[in-house]
Amino acid sequence: VTIWRDGEWIAGDRFEIGAQDRAFTLGDGLFETMLWDGRTVVRLERHLARLRTSAVALGFSLPGALTNIATVLSELAAKNDLGGARGALKLILSPAAPARGLARASDAASLLATAAALAPDPGPPFTLASVDVRRNESAPSARHKTLSYIDQIEARRQARALGADEAVQLNTAGALAGAGAGNLVVVIDGAALTPRVEDGALPGTVRAELLARGLIAERRIAAEAFARVEAMAVTNALVGVHPARAWGERALTVDHPLFQGLRAALT
Amino acid sequence: VTIWRDGEWIAGDRFEIGAQDRAFTLGDGLFETMLWDGRTVVRLERHLARLRTSAVALGFSLPGALTNIATVLSELAAKNDLGGARGALKLILSPAAPARGLARASDAASLLATAAALAPDPGPPFTLASVDVRRNESAPSARHKTLSYIDQIEARRQARALGADEAVQLNTAGALAGAGAGNLVVVIDGAALTPRVEDGALPGTVRAELLARGLIAERRIAAEAFARVEAMAVTNALVGVHPARAWGERALTVDHPLFQGLRAALT
Repeated sequence: VTIWRDGEWIAGDRFEIGAQDRAFTLGDGLFETMLWDGRTVVRLERHLARLRTSAVALGFSLPGALTNIATVLSELAAKNDLGGARGALKLILSPAAPARGLARASDAASLLATAAALAPDPGPPFTLASVDVRRNESAPSARHKTLSYIDQIEARRQARALGADEAVQLNTAGALAGAGAGNLVVVIDGAALTPRVEDGALPGTVRAELLARGLIAERRIAAEAFARVEAMAVTNALVGVHPARAWGERALTVDHPLFQGLRAALT
Repeated sequence: VTIWRDGEWIAGDRFEIGAQDRAFTLGDGLFETMLWDGRTVVRLERHLARLRTSAVALGFSLPGALTNIATVLSELAAKNDLGGARGALKLILSPAAPARGLARASDAASLLATAAALAPDPGPPFTLASVDVRRNESAPSARHKTLSYIDQIEARRQARALGADEAVQLNTAGALAGAGAGNLVVVIDGAALTPRVEDGALPGTVRAELLARGLIAERRIAAEAFARVEAMAVTNALVGVHPARAWGERALTVDHPLFQGLRAALT
C-alpha cells in the first residue's frame, strides 16, 4: 500500500497527525470517493468541481496540489497495483493547522489521497429500510461531502439492524432525501426522479451526470407519493446506479427499463 | 507535551493513524472536553457517564482502560505541567479498527487523551448571533458529543462573520436548541430555562449539574418567547456559566442574579 499526502508518497497506509488534527477531532474537512475503472478516474472533473465548490463554501483555501491531482491519482492507482482493476480512490481535504475549539487556526488545507481495491462488481440488488435519522436540509453536513459522517453511519447501522443493506433517509419535513451512502433515484408514474438538494440530497456526481443528460429530474418527493414508487436505485461513484429489490416490506422492480438506460449512460 | 493512547504515554503531540482511521475519515466516534481546575477533573463522573451512554447507543464496546481513566487523566495533567493551572483535558473514543465505507469492521474502540493549558478565566461576556444552520433534533450528532462537528464549526463561522463570538442555533422546528459549543440558559419571566434534549440540545455536563440541583428547568423555547428573553448564558465544561451581553441587535442583562446563583453552584 502507498498513500499520498501533501506532495509526498508514503509507503504503507499509516501516517502521523497532531493530537489536535481537526479531521480527527472534529470531522472538519471534505472528501471525495472516486471510482478507478482500471485505466482512469471516472468523472474526475465532477468530483474536483464539487470539492472546490464545497471547500470555498466552508472557508478553505484551495491547496496548490489540486491543480495536478489527476496525475497524482493515476500514479496512486499504479503504485497500488490497480492497473486493469476496479478501485476506490479517496481524496481528503482538511485543515492543515491543528487547533482546539470550533474556530480554525487558518484556512490552509491539507490533502490526503488513498486507494483500495474493489470487488469486480457491486453485488446483488440492495434491500432498503427507512430509518429514524433524518437528513437536515439546512446543514452543511447534508449539502457538502464532509468528514462529519456519524449520522449516515448511524443511519446505515439502523438499516442493518432492520435486516436491510442500506438506509433510506427522509428530511426534517418528511420528504425523501437520500440513502446512507448515495443518492436515490425513484421511478414514479414512469418517470425517474431524484430528491432536490434543498430537500437534503447530497449533490452526488452520478446524480449530476444523469441530471446533465436529462435522464432523471429533480423533484420534491413527499410521503404522499411513496405508495406510487415502482422502483428505486442507489447512485454513487462506486456502485453507479444500483437497483433495490425491496423498501421495507415492499417489493420493487429490479430490472426497470429506465435503470438500464441510466446505467448505459454511465459507461 | 505528552499524550496518552490506549495505555501508552507518547512524548510530543503527534501519533500515527491508519489511512482508513474512521475518526479521521468519517468523524466516527465520541469525545469529552473536561475542565482541569489545577487539582482535579471537574465533574469527571458526569463526563464518563455521558461517554459510556453514548458509546453504547452508537454501538461501541467500552474500552477496558475506561475503568482507570481518572488516574490516567490526573497523570496526564501532571505530565503536561498543569498542577495549579487551568487546563482542558480531552478524551476521544473512536473505532479501533480502520474500515472503508459506512459500516465498522468491529465495535472495539480506542481511547486518546490530550491536555492543553487554558487562560486563567473565560474572558468577557459573549455576543451571540442566530445562524442558518439548524440543529437536527432527530440526529445522533445532536444528542451525542460525536466527532462529527462540521455543522457546529460552520455555525460558529457564520456567527463570527456576523461579528459575534458564538452562534445561537434553532432546531428544525424553529425552537431554541443550543450554542455552537455549549448549551444555552435563558432567563424568561424570571425563570432560568434551557432547551430540552428532544429539541436538539446536547445533554451537557454543566447543564446536567444545574438541572440536578433544580436551578434551571428544561423547556421548549419557541420563537414566540424570544422577545421575552432578559438574559442568556452559554454553558459548557470549560466556561461554566458564561453570560452574553447581546443576541443580535438586542442587549441582554449580563449580571443577572440568577446567573450568579448558577455560577456559585458550580464552584
